[in-house]
Amino acid sequence: MATRVMKFGGTSVADPDRIRNAARRVAEARSEGHRIAVVVSAMGHATDSLIELAGTVARNPSRRELDALMSTGEAVSAALTAMALEDQGLAARSLNAFQCRMQTDAAFGRARLTGVDTRTLNELLDSGVTPVITGFQGVSDSGDLTTLGRGGSDTTAVAIAAALQVQKLGGCCEIYTDVDGVHTADPRLVPNAPKLGTITYDEMLELAAVGADVMHTRAVIFGQRYGVPIHVRHSQRPEPGTMIQLETPHMESIAVIGCALKPDLGRVHLQGLPRTAGIQGKVFSAIAAAGLIVDDIIQTESPGGVDLAFTVGHQDLPEVKVAVSEVLKQIGSGRIDLEVGLAKVSAVGTGMRSHAGVAGRMFQVLGDAGIPIRNITTSEIRISCLVPKEHGEVALRLVHETFGLALGERVTLAHQVSTPSIASCDR
Amino acid sequence: MATRVMKFGGTSVADPDRIRNAARRVAEARSEGHRIAVVVSAMGHATDSLIELAGTVARNPSRRELDALMSTGEAVSAALTAMALEDQGLAARSLNAFQCRMQTDAAFGRARLTGVDTRTLNELLDSGVTPVITGFQGVSDSGDLTTLGRGGSDTTAVAIAAALQVQKLGGCCEIYTDVDGVHTADPRLVPNAPKLGTITYDEMLELAAVGADVMHTRAVIFGQRYGVPIHVRHSQRPEPGTMIQLETPHMESIAVIGCALKPDLGRVHLQGLPRTAGIQGKVFSAIAAAGLIVDDIIQTESPGGVDLAFTVGHQDLPEVKVAVSEVLKQIGSGRIDLEVGLAKVSAVGTGMRSHAGVAGRMFQVLGDAGIPIRNITTSEIRISCLVPKEHGEVALRLVHETFGLALGERVTLAHQVSTPSIASCDR
Repeated sequence: MATRVMKFGGTSVADPDRIRNAARRVAEARSEGHRIAVVVSAMGHATDSLIELAGTVARNPSRRELDALMSTGEAVSAALTAMALEDQGLAARSLNAFQCRMQTDAAFGRARLTGVDTRTLNELLDSGVTPVITGFQGVSDSGDLTTLGRGGSDTTAVAIAAALQVQKLGGCCEIYTDVDGVHTADPRLVPNAPKLGTITYDEMLELAAVGADVMHTRAVIFGQRYGVPIHVRHSQRPEPGTMIQLETPHMESIAVIGCALKPDLGRVHLQGLPRTAGIQGKVFSAIAAAGLIVDDIIQTESPGGVDLAFTVGHQDLPEVKVAVSEVLKQIGSGRIDLEVGLAKVSAVGTGMRSHAGVAGRMFQVLGDAGIPIRNITTSEIRISCLVPKEHGEVALRLVHETFGLALGERVTLAHQVSTPSIASCDR
Repeated sequence: MATRVMKFGGTSVADPDRIRNAARRVAEARSEGHRIAVVVSAMGHATDSLIELAGTVARNPSRRELDALMSTGEAVSAALTAMALEDQGLAARSLNAFQCRMQTDAAFGRARLTGVDTRTLNELLDSGVTPVITGFQGVSDSGDLTTLGRGGSDTTAVAIAAALQVQKLGGCCEIYTDVDGVHTADPRLVPNAPKLGTITYDEMLELAAVGADVMHTRAVIFGQRYGVPIHVRHSQRPEPGTMIQLETPHMESIAVIGCALKPDLGRVHLQGLPRTAGIQGKVFSAIAAAGLIVDDIIQTESPGGVDLAFTVGHQDLPEVKVAVSEVLKQIGSGRIDLEVGLAKVSAVGTGMRSHAGVAGRMFQVLGDAGIPIRNITTSEIRISCLVPKEHGEVALRLVHETFGLALGERVTLAHQVSTPSIASCDR
């Protein structure tokens, strides 16, 4: 008998049929003798509808009231899911953020969980009752309802799994969603990309950062911090999905576990900045102040001064230009160049640490195909190349193929030398 | 500066326009310097939609989960109303049953309020913030969400007004609804029935019991118990409505303040019951066990034994017959007669206590019109006559006219003798 958290996302509780289906999944797990805590998101697009409704009564609704409003979405699906479980003959009880004491800070709309009181949950579990907990929300110290931001329900689920210490009780946190797990690449772009049986937290985080849209990173970070295995699986299919877990020795033999594409990027290139301390702070503070998000940053030096290159979402380029030009004017030197129509292809793998040649092989296959590389950035377990957007999908498929991901025969390379940290700045 | 509770019913917050309108009403009251606490119902038919949704996931949803589900309706309108108030430039804060500690017993679906903690409310009011409280719901001692049943939001509003002691602070509980107040009769049946400026709690309770559908009786009883004046008024119109309040000496000069019609009643007549103690208990316990509601009960005796007559909703007659016939079989004596197609016309007035002749005048006007009276029942401040359904509306208008209600020149009678308690059983 294991203790397990089963989390059903918005698409998995989008309508009464799906809610009943979710209840059947829980009933199956219960019939195997497991202690089950359920976490649910709001039904389908309920959250978006509520935000839209808010816009019809107020021009600029406060974050506190938006959170109070949005939190009703999960309360509805939690009550309905509990009813569907009872209809399956299971004892169940819906619990909102007050009832299971999901404490957060007071940052409305992007609150951080600070504690979960598991007393109520354990009492219910011990007496054979399945708690059904509202995801995405919490209560601040002053008793206000808060929400956790995008992907918040996943975070709730992993936090509850951590608080219940499922990892010590033979369990895990199951994330039921509308994909069957994590693939070696997005199957919409690379149709022969197989599903991964396991992946490490680090790999999942890197893949998410470079475009894989399977799970929100905050939940993965929570899982990593507390060692909670996270099982991402399809809510309508019986077969197992992908287990996100701690690195195992076996994993090191695989150099690259997956790859991803981030399309529609623009590149900003600042040249001839003065060699004074604090220059980078000025540039990126101005961008942050405008509420814009920067992707990768590269800095090099040339005889003319400091060169800074970074990528941003295509649609943000005009605003970035305004913000950065203002800084250059204040500095009194430097030149800005913009480039649009770029995409980033990345290869990720924990095993990269112990394998040399991964980067070389990736550059080679792109070069052989005549695809120009405009930027290169790496982390310990990731290599990313910025390429012209029109080559993006081909580049992804080439990288996927060269590391043998489609075949399940992932490439292991001979040299036991770490991949060096590489940065090139195409001037 | 007075402290006032403003309660907006489902039709008054049915859509964004109406919510903004409600916010304007609150802003007006605030601009006059009053301390305002707002209570809201769920938007329009939101509660019915939620109950319908429950029916799609479970055949027989539990009351606990139904309450958890339904409570989201008021949480939505409270958050939206708070946003609309903020949009008017007012500080506001939505509060659910946890946040303002609306304590109830654990009777899901028909919970009774046991306490309201006004500390949070008074803190907000003192600092110029308008609290917007979810009506209709509470929290049980074990931390479960409960609902108060039909008309529950009115009860919440009056309870909060009582807890804030508005009656001592120059205020009242305002119930904003889709009617402009309490009329001397239902204006749909008696078009010239004027709106009453004031009415006593007792009169309002009697009128509600005999068919006037303006306010739920529980809220009026609460108001009466704590002496909270209740102002029923239209949410879209500026003019005052009807104040439900304690009896004043002035009121005694008016014999009849209003009248009402309860259509579609059936009459059950049991004859020849044995003269043994407990016989009535057997009959009405059987009816209650079948979940059926009995209107007026009359008992008389004849040489053949005890005669019992009572009225029930027309649609309940077949089930009542089954339940009562079973009892008669057990007793081994008695005969049941059923009569369909009846209506009850009632006259109500606190002044009736101090005026003789009210009953006689009512019987006279019905008799002159050739309307047969099948049952008569009275309370201290009410006289009701059961008449054939087809005469119901005419009877109502006649009674309304004979007591001068349409003209605003209500009849006062000479004799200072109480109306005797009257019961006739038409055999």
